[in-house]
Amino acid sequence: MAFDILVTNGTVLTVNADFEVIEDGAVGIRDGRIEFIGAAADLADPAASRMLDAQGGIVLPGLVNTHTHMPMSLFRGLADDLPLDSWLRDHIFPAEQRYISPETVHAGALLSCAEMLLSGTTCCCDGYFHEDSVAEAVHAGGIRAVLGQGVIDFPAPGVPDPGTNVQCALDFVRKWKNRSKLISPAIFCHSPYTCSAQTLSSAKDAARAEDVLFQVHVAETCGEGKAVGLDDGTSPVAWLAGLGVLDENTLAVHAVWADALDIGVLADHGAMISHNPESNMKLASGVAPVTEMLAAGLTVGLGTDGCASNNNLDMIAEMGTAARVHKAALLDPTVMNATTVIRMATIEGARALGLSDRIGSLEAGKEADLIVVEARQPHMYPLYHPASHMVYAAKGSDVRHVMVAGRLLVEDRMFQHFSLSGVMADVRRIAGEVRRTDKKMDFSG
Amino acid sequence: MAFDILVTNGTVLTVNADFEVIEDGAVGIRDGRIEFIGAAADLADPAASRMLDAQGGIVLPGLVNTHTHMPMSLFRGLADDLPLDSWLRDHIFPAEQRYISPETVHAGALLSCAEMLLSGTTCCCDGYFHEDSVAEAVHAGGIRAVLGQGVIDFPAPGVPDPGTNVQCALDFVRKWKNRSKLISPAIFCHSPYTCSAQTLSSAKDAARAEDVLFQVHVAETCGEGKAVGLDDGTSPVAWLAGLGVLDENTLAVHAVWADALDIGVLADHGAMISHNPESNMKLASGVAPVTEMLAAGLTVGLGTDGCASNNNLDMIAEMGTAARVHKAALLDPTVMNATTVIRMATIEGARALGLSDRIGSLEAGKEADLIVVEARQPHMYPLYHPASHMVYAAKGSDVRHVMVAGRLLVEDRMFQHFSLSGVMADVRRIAGEVRRTDKKMDFSG
Repeated sequence: MAFDILVTNGTVLTVNADFEVIEDGAVGIRDGRIEFIGAAADLADPAASRMLDAQGGIVLPGLVNTHTHMPMSLFRGLADDLPLDSWLRDHIFPAEQRYISPETVHAGALLSCAEMLLSGTTCCCDGYFHEDSVAEAVHAGGIRAVLGQGVIDFPAPGVPDPGTNVQCALDFVRKWKNRSKLISPAIFCHSPYTCSAQTLSSAKDAARAEDVLFQVHVAETCGEGKAVGLDDGTSPVAWLAGLGVLDENTLAVHAVWADALDIGVLADHGAMISHNPESNMKLASGVAPVTEMLAAGLTVGLGTDGCASNNNLDMIAEMGTAARVHKAALLDPTVMNATTVIRMATIEGARALGLSDRIGSLEAGKEADLIVVEARQPHMYPLYHPASHMVYAAKGSDVRHVMVAGRLLVEDRMFQHFSLSGVMADVRRIAGEVRRTDKKMDFSG
Repeated sequence: MAFDILVTNGTVLTVNADFEVIEDGAVGIRDGRIEFIGAAADLADPAASRMLDAQGGIVLPGLVNTHTHMPMSLFRGLADDLPLDSWLRDHIFPAEQRYISPETVHAGALLSCAEMLLSGTTCCCDGYFHEDSVAEAVHAGGIRAVLGQGVIDFPAPGVPDPGTNVQCALDFVRKWKNRSKLISPAIFCHSPYTCSAQTLSSAKDAARAEDVLFQVHVAETCGEGKAVGLDDGTSPVAWLAGLGVLDENTLAVHAVWADALDIGVLADHGAMISHNPESNMKLASGVAPVTEMLAAGLTVGLGTDGCASNNNLDMIAEMGTAARVHKAALLDPTVMNATTVIRMATIEGARALGLSDRIGSLEAGKEADLIVVEARQPHMYPLYHPASHMVYAAKGSDVRHVMVAGRLLVEDRMFQHFSLSGVMADVRRIAGEVRRTDKKMDFSG
C-alpha cells in the first residue's frame, strides 16, 4: 500500500477546523488524494514511489485565488497611478479592443498560470472574455480553476453582439462541464453598472440552471450606485438582492462599499465574498469591511484581481497586505490575525468557490493541492510560528514545490510539465505591439 | 582607463533629478565610484576588469532603509496580532531582557544584513543597544549603514544605568567616527515618552557636537502625547521642537499622527522623516500623512522598522505597500506614484540620512551602490515601465546582483564574501532558547 508521493520533514499547516499544526509532519498521497496526514512518527509504513523532502519547510494547502482576469497579465504595468477614467479609457480599453483575441488570451492566461503556480496558488477563479482560450491555457498549465465567460452589455472581445452575451456564457459552461476534473465553468457577469437588470437576471438563471458559480463585481467604488442609476438610494448590493441574483452560488467580488445593511443582505442570502485588498488599494477604491463581514458569518476568500490593477498574482503578498491593511484601517492590531488570513487564502476561498469539500485544507480524503515553502533563508529566520511567517515574512518566491491533485507541477521552483520560454516569447511579441500603440507610453518618470 | 566593473544590458533607472531611464544602459565603475553612466552605445571604450551582464534586467540605485532595529530579527514572528501592551510586555521586553547580549546582537544584525542585501538594500539606518556589536556585524556584512546607539531612560541591554545613556551613545559615536568609510555613527534617542526633556536635549547636543544624525521615534501612536504627559495639548512634535532637537540632522521616525501644524513645524526646522508603512499598519498605529509632508517640502525616506513589528526587511515589498496604502487612505489613485516611491526608497532616503551627495542615485561621481533586478520571470512579464514593475510587481527575491561602493557583495543571489550557514546556525541556537521561554508560545492557531 505504498503512497504515490510522501511529503516529509516539514511543519504542516493543515488549516483544518482546529488549524492544527503538525511539527515533523507527513502527508501521504495516493491517486491524487491525501491518504495520510499526521506526525511522521505515526506513519506505520513510510513507503512511497516518490519521497518529497520539505527540508524543514512549511507544508500547507495550495492557495486559492478567488478573483483574477488571467489574460490581463498582458497589460501588467501598462498604466498606473492614473485617475480611473483615464486608466480605463486611454489605456486598458484601447489595448483590449486592439489586442485581445483567442491567441493573446491563451498566451496571457498561460503566463498567469505560471506566475500563480510558482507563487503557490493551486486554484483560481477567473472571469474574462474568450474564456474558452483561458480554459485551454489552464488545461495546459495544470492549475485548478473556476472559469467564467464574461457577460457585459457592450460589444466585447469575442462577443461583438451583446444580445448574445448570456448565450455565449452558457455555451462556454456546457462545453467545459465535466470535461476536465480541474476546471469548473462559471458565468462572470461584469457588474451592475455594465449589465442591465435583464442581463443579470438571465445570466443568473442560466448559472442556476447549470448549477455553476455566478461571479459579479459589486460595490467596488463609492460612486457605483450612481453609475447604476440607483437614484432612490438603493445600494448596488440591495439592487442585486432584489433581482434575485444573490445566493450561496454567487461570488460578490470586492464589496468595498458594502455597508452594515448590505452585509446583512449578503449574509441573509448566503452570498460569498471575494476580497481583493491590493487592487482596491491601488485603484483607490477603499478598504472593504472584512472584519464586519466575518462577524456577520459571511464566507470571505482572498483574491488578487487581474494584473492590470494589482500588478501581480502573488497570494502570499496579498495575505500580508490583507493582514496589515485592516489593522491600520481599524487601528486594532488584533484583527485579521495570521490564521484568519491563511484560512481566507485557502479553505475559505475554496468555500467561496464551492470547492471546500474537495480542497482548501490538508485532510485525509481531500484532493492533494499542496505547497511546500522554503524556510531556510534569512528572511524566514528564525522560525517561531509558521503561520506568522507565511503572512508577515514569506514571499511568493519561497514556494519550492507545488502539487495539484497529487500532480507535482513545480519542483524546486521549476516547472515539470511545460516550458516557460515559449510562453514568454509569445507574451514579449504581443507586448511589443501593445507598447508601440499605447498612446501615452513614456519611459521617463 | 578600463573600469573595474562595467554593468551592461539592462534598463537603468538613474533616479537622478529628471528620473532619467536609460534603455540598454551602461554603468562603469572605478575605485568604488560611478565613472560612466549612459547609453551603452555612447561608451567609447567598454573595457573593464569585470563585465556584469544585467541580462535585460533593471539596474537601479541600492535601496536605502531609513529605519531598522537589526538585532530584532532574532524575534521575527515571536508574537503578532496582539494588543501593543501585551506584545511588548509579555513577549518583546522579556525576550530582550533575557537574550540581548553583544553576541546575540551580532548574530541578529548579521542575519539582518544578509536579508537586506539579498533583497536589494545597500544602506540602512539602525537604532538599538549594544550598537558596537551591530557595527562589527555591519562591517563584516559589508552593507553601508548609519548606526545609532540607543538612549532611553530605563535600564537597557548594555546600559544598566540610564544615567550613563548619553555618554554611552557618545562613546559609540567617537569610537566609530572615521573608522569605516561605510559606517556613519549616530545617536538614537528612543522617543519622547521614554526619554525626558533633559535626556533628549543632551543627546541632541552630543549629536550636534559630533555632527552626526539624531534619530527619534515620534508621533507613532495616537496616544503618544498623553504618554509623554503633555496635558496642555502640545503635540509630541511641537514638544521636540520646543526642546530644540529638530533640525536638518534629525530623523523623525514614523510621524503617523503628525497633523498639519506638526508638518509645518517639521518643515520649518528642516527635519527629515522616516516613513514605515508596514510597521505602522501591522501595529495598527495608522497611516502617516506622507502626501501632505511631501507637499510641505519635507524629505521623506522609506523604512521597514525592525523585524519584531513588520516582520521583514524587504524594501521592495515596502515600496509596494507605500504606493498602495496612501491611495486607499486618500481614495486617490494618483498619489504616491511609482517614481515618487522609488525616490523615497533611494535618493530621498539618502537625503534623510545626510548621504545624498554620496549615494541614492546613479550619477557620475557618486559611490557605486547599485542593484540589478531580474526581469525575465513570469511575474515581471511583460515589461512596459520598469519603475512600475519595481513598485507593483517585483519581489525582494528578484534582486540578482548587489554592489556597495563598487564591491559586488551579492552575485546571482549568492554572497561572495561570507557564508550564511554560520550566521543561521547561531540564530537557530538563540531562537531555540527564546522559544523555550517565551511564555505564550503556542503553535496552534
